[in-house]
Amino acid sequence: MAAILESDAAQPAFTARHIGISAGDRATMLAELGFGTLDHLIDAAVPAAIRSTRRLRLPQPVPEADVAAELAELAFRNRVSVPMIGLGYYPAITPAVIRRNVLQDPAWYTAYTPYQPEISQGRLEALLNFQTMVGDLTGLAIANASLLDEGTAVAEAMMLMRRASGSSSRLLVDSDTLPQTLEVLRTRAAAIGVEVELIDVTDLLPGGEFFGLVISYPGCSGEIRDLAPLVVQAHERGALVAAATDLLALTLLTPPGEFGADIAVGSAQRLGVPLFHGGPHAAFMAVRKGLERHLPGRLVGVSVDAAGNPAYRLALQTREQHIRRDRATSNICTAQVLLAVVASMYAVYHGPAGLTAIARQVHDHATALAAGLRAAGHAVVTEHFFDTLTVRAPGRGAAVVDAAHEAGLLLRLVDADHVAVACSEITTAEHISSVLAAFGATPCAARQETAGGLPERMRRRSGFLTHPVFHEHRSETAMLRYVRRLSGRDFALDRGMIPLGSCTMKLNATTQMEAIGLAGFADLHPFAPPEDVAGYTRLIRQLETWLAEITGYAAVSVQPNAGSQGELAGLLAIRAYHRDRGEARRDVCLIPASAHGTNAASAVLAGMRVIVIASQDDGAVDLADLEAKCRQHADELAAVMVTYPSTHGVYEDGISRLCDLVHEYGGQVYVDGANLNALLGVARPGEFGGDVSHLNLHKTFCVPHGGGGPGVGPIAVAAHLVPYLPTHPLHPDPRRRLGAGTISAAPYGSAGILPIAWAYIRLMGDAGLTEATKVAVLSANYLARRLSPSFPILFVGENGLVAHECILDLRPLTAATGVTVDDVAKRLIDFGFHAPTMSFPVAGTLMVEPTESEDLAELERFVEAMVAIRREIDEIAAGVVAVEESALRHAPHTTAAVTGDEWSRGYTRGHGAFPTGASPDKYWPPVGRIEQAYGDRNLVCSCPAPATFES
Amino acid sequence: MAAILESDAAQPAFTARHIGISAGDRATMLAELGFGTLDHLIDAAVPAAIRSTRRLRLPQPVPEADVAAELAELAFRNRVSVPMIGLGYYPAITPAVIRRNVLQDPAWYTAYTPYQPEISQGRLEALLNFQTMVGDLTGLAIANASLLDEGTAVAEAMMLMRRASGSSSRLLVDSDTLPQTLEVLRTRAAAIGVEVELIDVTDLLPGGEFFGLVISYPGCSGEIRDLAPLVVQAHERGALVAAATDLLALTLLTPPGEFGADIAVGSAQRLGVPLFHGGPHAAFMAVRKGLERHLPGRLVGVSVDAAGNPAYRLALQTREQHIRRDRATSNICTAQVLLAVVASMYAVYHGPAGLTAIARQVHDHATALAAGLRAAGHAVVTEHFFDTLTVRAPGRGAAVVDAAHEAGLLLRLVDADHVAVACSEITTAEHISSVLAAFGATPCAARQETAGGLPERMRRRSGFLTHPVFHEHRSETAMLRYVRRLSGRDFALDRGMIPLGSCTMKLNATTQMEAIGLAGFADLHPFAPPEDVAGYTRLIRQLETWLAEITGYAAVSVQPNAGSQGELAGLLAIRAYHRDRGEARRDVCLIPASAHGTNAASAVLAGMRVIVIASQDDGAVDLADLEAKCRQHADELAAVMVTYPSTHGVYEDGISRLCDLVHEYGGQVYVDGANLNALLGVARPGEFGGDVSHLNLHKTFCVPHGGGGPGVGPIAVAAHLVPYLPTHPLHPDPRRRLGAGTISAAPYGSAGILPIAWAYIRLMGDAGLTEATKVAVLSANYLARRLSPSFPILFVGENGLVAHECILDLRPLTAATGVTVDDVAKRLIDFGFHAPTMSFPVAGTLMVEPTESEDLAELERFVEAMVAIRREIDEIAAGVVAVEESALRHAPHTTAAVTGDEWSRGYTRGHGAFPTGASPDKYWPPVGRIEQAYGDRNLVCSCPAPATFES
Repeated sequence: MAAILESDAAQPAFTARHIGISAGDRATMLAELGFGTLDHLIDAAVPAAIRSTRRLRLPQPVPEADVAAELAELAFRNRVSVPMIGLGYYPAITPAVIRRNVLQDPAWYTAYTPYQPEISQGRLEALLNFQTMVGDLTGLAIANASLLDEGTAVAEAMMLMRRASGSSSRLLVDSDTLPQTLEVLRTRAAAIGVEVELIDVTDLLPGGEFFGLVISYPGCSGEIRDLAPLVVQAHERGALVAAATDLLALTLLTPPGEFGADIAVGSAQRLGVPLFHGGPHAAFMAVRKGLERHLPGRLVGVSVDAAGNPAYRLALQTREQHIRRDRATSNICTAQVLLAVVASMYAVYHGPAGLTAIARQVHDHATALAAGLRAAGHAVVTEHFFDTLTVRAPGRGAAVVDAAHEAGLLLRLVDADHVAVACSEITTAEHISSVLAAFGATPCAARQETAGGLPERMRRRSGFLTHPVFHEHRSETAMLRYVRRLSGRDFALDRGMIPLGSCTMKLNATTQMEAIGLAGFADLHPFAPPEDVAGYTRLIRQLETWLAEITGYAAVSVQPNAGSQGELAGLLAIRAYHRDRGEARRDVCLIPASAHGTNAASAVLAGMRVIVIASQDDGAVDLADLEAKCRQHADELAAVMVTYPSTHGVYEDGISRLCDLVHEYGGQVYVDGANLNALLGVARPGEFGGDVSHLNLHKTFCVPHGGGGPGVGPIAVAAHLVPYLPTHPLHPDPRRRLGAGTISAAPYGSAGILPIAWAYIRLMGDAGLTEATKVAVLSANYLARRLSPSFPILFVGENGLVAHECILDLRPLTAATGVTVDDVAKRLIDFGFHAPTMSFPVAGTLMVEPTESEDLAELERFVEAMVAIRREIDEIAAGVVAVEESALRHAPHTTAAVTGDEWSRGYTRGHGAFPTGASPDKYWPPVGRIEQAYGDRNLVCSCPAPATFES
Repeated sequence: MAAILESDAAQPAFTARHIGISAGDRATMLAELGFGTLDHLIDAAVPAAIRSTRRLRLPQPVPEADVAAELAELAFRNRVSVPMIGLGYYPAITPAVIRRNVLQDPAWYTAYTPYQPEISQGRLEALLNFQTMVGDLTGLAIANASLLDEGTAVAEAMMLMRRASGSSSRLLVDSDTLPQTLEVLRTRAAAIGVEVELIDVTDLLPGGEFFGLVISYPGCSGEIRDLAPLVVQAHERGALVAAATDLLALTLLTPPGEFGADIAVGSAQRLGVPLFHGGPHAAFMAVRKGLERHLPGRLVGVSVDAAGNPAYRLALQTREQHIRRDRATSNICTAQVLLAVVASMYAVYHGPAGLTAIARQVHDHATALAAGLRAAGHAVVTEHFFDTLTVRAPGRGAAVVDAAHEAGLLLRLVDADHVAVACSEITTAEHISSVLAAFGATPCAARQETAGGLPERMRRRSGFLTHPVFHEHRSETAMLRYVRRLSGRDFALDRGMIPLGSCTMKLNATTQMEAIGLAGFADLHPFAPPEDVAGYTRLIRQLETWLAEITGYAAVSVQPNAGSQGELAGLLAIRAYHRDRGEARRDVCLIPASAHGTNAASAVLAGMRVIVIASQDDGAVDLADLEAKCRQHADELAAVMVTYPSTHGVYEDGISRLCDLVHEYGGQVYVDGANLNALLGVARPGEFGGDVSHLNLHKTFCVPHGGGGPGVGPIAVAAHLVPYLPTHPLHPDPRRRLGAGTISAAPYGSAGILPIAWAYIRLMGDAGLTEATKVAVLSANYLARRLSPSFPILFVGENGLVAHECILDLRPLTAATGVTVDDVAKRLIDFGFHAPTMSFPVAGTLMVEPTESEDLAELERFVEAMVAIRREIDEIAAGVVAVEESALRHAPHTTAAVTGDEWSRGYTRGHGAFPTGASPDKYWPPVGRIEQAYGDRNLVCSCPAPATFES
């Protein structure tokens, strides 16, 4: 039946849907470049020494419908119980209008990080709502726009407290803290030489110096303590206080800011975000006034645009790791934008009264449970509680948990004699009855008289979410329009190319995206028992195996939930490896000058010393300098951290020699996988010399950028580093004997979006992945060739070719005309494009990465726009128009700007607005060019009063 | 546990999400109207005589998540097999990018019918693509933009042929026609006095006159005959020929237009539309040049806008039923826009090569099956085939079908000795093996040598889908952007209010919409065996029961798949009832002058004579005239057809008297349910005198309008009419002894979207539905009150109140200033609104229906816009500006218009574009005002060449 089997593929395979360049267009492009075939191009571009000698051993790809069916089958193998485990993860109801129009809408999920604020006003407003919500609920002045998870948020709080408060290296930590948070904290503290001391917060604080105190409010056990006296003590002793807390509980409880905490952190998951077996979820951090410049992560602020109208943008970017590099105090880069947007929309939809009612309901269920248990003679250990009870069950803990599991409920086995139960938004009276039954108690009808578990003196008295945005969208119709209005302001992949160098903004296919909404993937608790998660286990094992095969390494861990966390995990593995070999002194990390800033920041957080390696004029790593530094630090050399192809967009010939050199001096080679889209199927880092790499599933493997997160950053390691892959306290993995500690709060990080990457590999197979890489290289070289007459390409290989991206050097034009990369980037908006990466890795340049998914028509449209911009620059050079009067400097043009009654510029309205001819489908930026400095001088990071927007 | 149960409702109930007016706003609005409570308003507005005396007996509503779970459970009770039944319904793969971004996107599904073309250019382009595709594939000049199903399409073809060709009343019909098509045709033919004669098309045509010939190509059996000789014969004898055909097969077969057929009809379902247990699907009709003005249904054409640019709009509207009324020759109103868009996008995505490859694959499977069966000694009756084989299985038919069902495949039992098998896009080699096994044949490996089943002389030689749109969107990225670009041009409920009188454009909640995508609802064949559709059966029975309870009738049938079909079904029931009582002479249908045009058209198609009843000056039915007409036609009176509340937007006091009068004269009362949104929970037509009503689930019950369809038009009847509810040949219902025939091709019409209406009732319950009605009336009266100083309200009840909509009388202003309803409607676009209903039921007026789902802010925004427009009219009246120079006349304003270098109008650019202040979220129409007459004079109904759009 061979003929039939072939004819089953009558529909163009997924590969042809993923890759934008058709066969005919490919020939055109190759001809332009002077190559006969794609393989000739690749042979010329990629050094032979690193080429992989064999095909990838991956399953044969199957059509989209079959992959969807396989994913449904895997999801079906997971058992969806009712999780009452707590530990920071609670089932929540995602309002359907938000699920369909945010989580499942490409206008939201295919957007990039809002570095170009003029075309990101929608999600910036949503993130400002998030910050406002977090600030209001925690009672603190300023909140950021999300961290990765609660565990790493506490670690970030530790680092913030340490740098803000002092000389001590001792941190006191509430013993009633989530176990995974403690493990993440221990991992991170050990790496930077902080001692963690667990304390019982009901006592006086222990003597001796300490720089910070971490408290849990409510505690892991469910207990709510009055922590104000401890905060006073800590402050008196010069330390800062961070509270790990729960936003839903804070609708009923005095917020940490009101009892003096300096910092509040936690997860916003339970505000409408699916459990996703552990992630992705948005964590948060809020700080009191005075600490805002220490805040890690992204911060949205209000500034003004060229017309003086209020406009949102990322504030205080000088704090960020990509700016501070080896002076960075956090390596956080990607945030959890999509999930922060969902949580903020949940608050917009429910408003303060709705959130309070939900919290009240959760609490009433917990109260009913406590009453029922006590009535039946069970000892409820938790005295004051919001949603979680710890209950004594002497010798019967496991039996109670098993009985509940039989009834479809997951409880938490604290120890042989204790069980904890956490209520949530989905808890019903029936669930409470079932829990009582699992304890052997009969539901009683007497509960109405029972007092609630909230301590009276900790009741919240202050208002919150008073801004109109939390009151105006109560009907589903109004909510839908609000969500649509915001997404309508943003430019995402659904509108056009986002040619961001190093960010690989490619197709996020619907078939990949649909599976994550299946209940069998979305509704699993991270600590569900193994027998409930057979589908996830299988999917994760397969994905890890495939990624190892693709990268040429021995094993993979998907735990790191962002590239930055992958870097840290990889470097910690290297450190642990050296230490176990008796070479703990090895702490020098060599990093080329061209590296991503995050590399250096991660090295610092791994407790390493960063030594920078020079670049040659052609952009390549200066191997002589490398060798000199290796020799100089021979005994202390821990690792080199190198991106391949380099951030200069070139396959450097010297990579093999570089790896050899570092190995000769006893160092390990960390190959940053940011540019893996130039390697898949063509070369494998584990084969050409890498010991460890992290991958960015949100770049190469089609997990969408979500408007600035989630990311996924698995690490892949050679055999000798396998024992040092991340571990997890609640998910011990027999394969990991030693481990480099716990990196993420959840065992598999952002497990809920791993099906996206799994589906990509399953759909493409070896041939498809390899083809995608080759076409990505073709498209980048085609763009370089077409653009080079207008803008010189800064770096090319010896063959005159680039890899999968290219850098346009604007510096000579800037020097001659005053036209900046900013002017070009903003002018591109008028043409309907997102700007390329600006001034990275070289100031004054633009880095362009087309990816394999853009079709030739879109590439040509971009070329035309850039050529037209070059003509505009030439007019300035020729003195026809002054740069200050030019359309470039006034870009982007809003509808308000070009329809004003006055018009006195040196160009026509039409030229400003429609440089390529009037299109009814043109994207219009909602604001003009935004003044960055104004916003940083006048820092406003929560929703401004509506009057601000009156014109 | 009562307290707990209450607290489970901590989230605002769905009712509060569906109804836009908050409690506080309600008080404000009631105060404006001078009522203390909502009930006082309703008591004043609704005549006591018709008020329902008891609450609706409906299940207690449950929260959204629970309703979603109940629907998932119902879907799970349906067994999803692999349908190989054929009979016009084939499983198809909806490309995921189309599913998510068209079928599941509110920008597409909440849009209204494109009567305002300036704000509907996106779906008009998609529909033009549909017409182009149908025209190309059928080889005919002009196709319409969808009919309801293949059965009714054949009936429409019959009516077209009859009016275009002649005096005879005899129709010859191919005996190898789908059984449900034959039944629909028989029902419709009998009603208008056409004799249907089945013929074997392999013979010479029989003698005697006939006006038309209907052929099936391929036939129901799967056989493909060379029909050209018969077409010649028919033409020689002065008759027209209509071919029922299959678009996928036509990629391989000579199209009907090329062998002389005058008309082609069929279903576009298999082009990517889910089976939906029978519907909704888009049917099509294409005709040769010369017949276009006879074409029923909607026709999209190309015209020009005010700037001379090409623009799409509905063409030749004078053909349509709502214009032609009792001279109408079709009652088709709603089309199947959303499904036609999906089918057109499927063609855009696959292109001609892709469609051909799919067809080839389907055919290869059928060929392999034929070879396998023959090799095993089975007689394949079908000689030439595309996808369907009829196979002899003497005495074993049922056993073969059962064996296949066991293996998860559904075959068709033709009779005891014959089984038919239809291949489709989802057929695999494994399916073919399973079918062979069910026949007891062993799959053989010899098939490669087997010739295909396509007759060589019928192979297609001509090209199709040559327009660039079918070639430019091959990657998923390109496809996504195309879909988004088109939806970005349209104004739907996701942007703002669509205050269309009589169309009830209310919230289509996501929870209602999500369920229709479940495989258990989407992937069921309409003729799946009863044991496979237990979930559907239960859902339909419940929905019918609930609708009967709500309307006060004895029983309901959901078979009619549009309001027009419901009307026809109801009138046919009345005719059958009279006939069975020996009063066949009763054929007069009284219809008030204010009625929807469709009413009269449906009466004509039911074989009735229409007598129009006058209206009084106050808009009420003239009861004296009614009584006079009843008396005049006492012996012939069949029915009165009345809308309640009337299309004048008023609860008429006389309704009870009207019903009594008609009953006294032996007539039946048909209450058109178009305005049921003013009655739910307040009054029940079956209680206040109605004998039959049709409901519009796409109005009152939240099925979205889909950009102009699908609709659903169930009928509800009193006990004496229950025996005359629709029947179906393939789904005999023991409750229906007599029946009025078959109305729709599928037994339950558009079964696939019934979960939407089911969910609405389940979510709202008695209290919610009643509250919605009351608030709809409140909002309409509030708007009437606020707008009346600017625009007089044409009709109010004796109490000074309107019902759920109100009519603004512009005629005095038009007389004084020349400003037309068109000017006001188009100017509203500049304010970001869809226009109200124009010139219905009274020319020169606007009918406004806010529905209960709009919030007060949106109502106020509308009032402000209308007041501002009144000020603009006043300026014209005052001579400040000439009407020709006014922003009203130049509306709507495109970005191109207001950014042009020249500006010489009597108002500023800003006033034209931003009458309410510059908003970055403003909706911009992609074209200016469209000239209707130009397009009808220069009829272009397929995609124009790209050069047309060059500016």
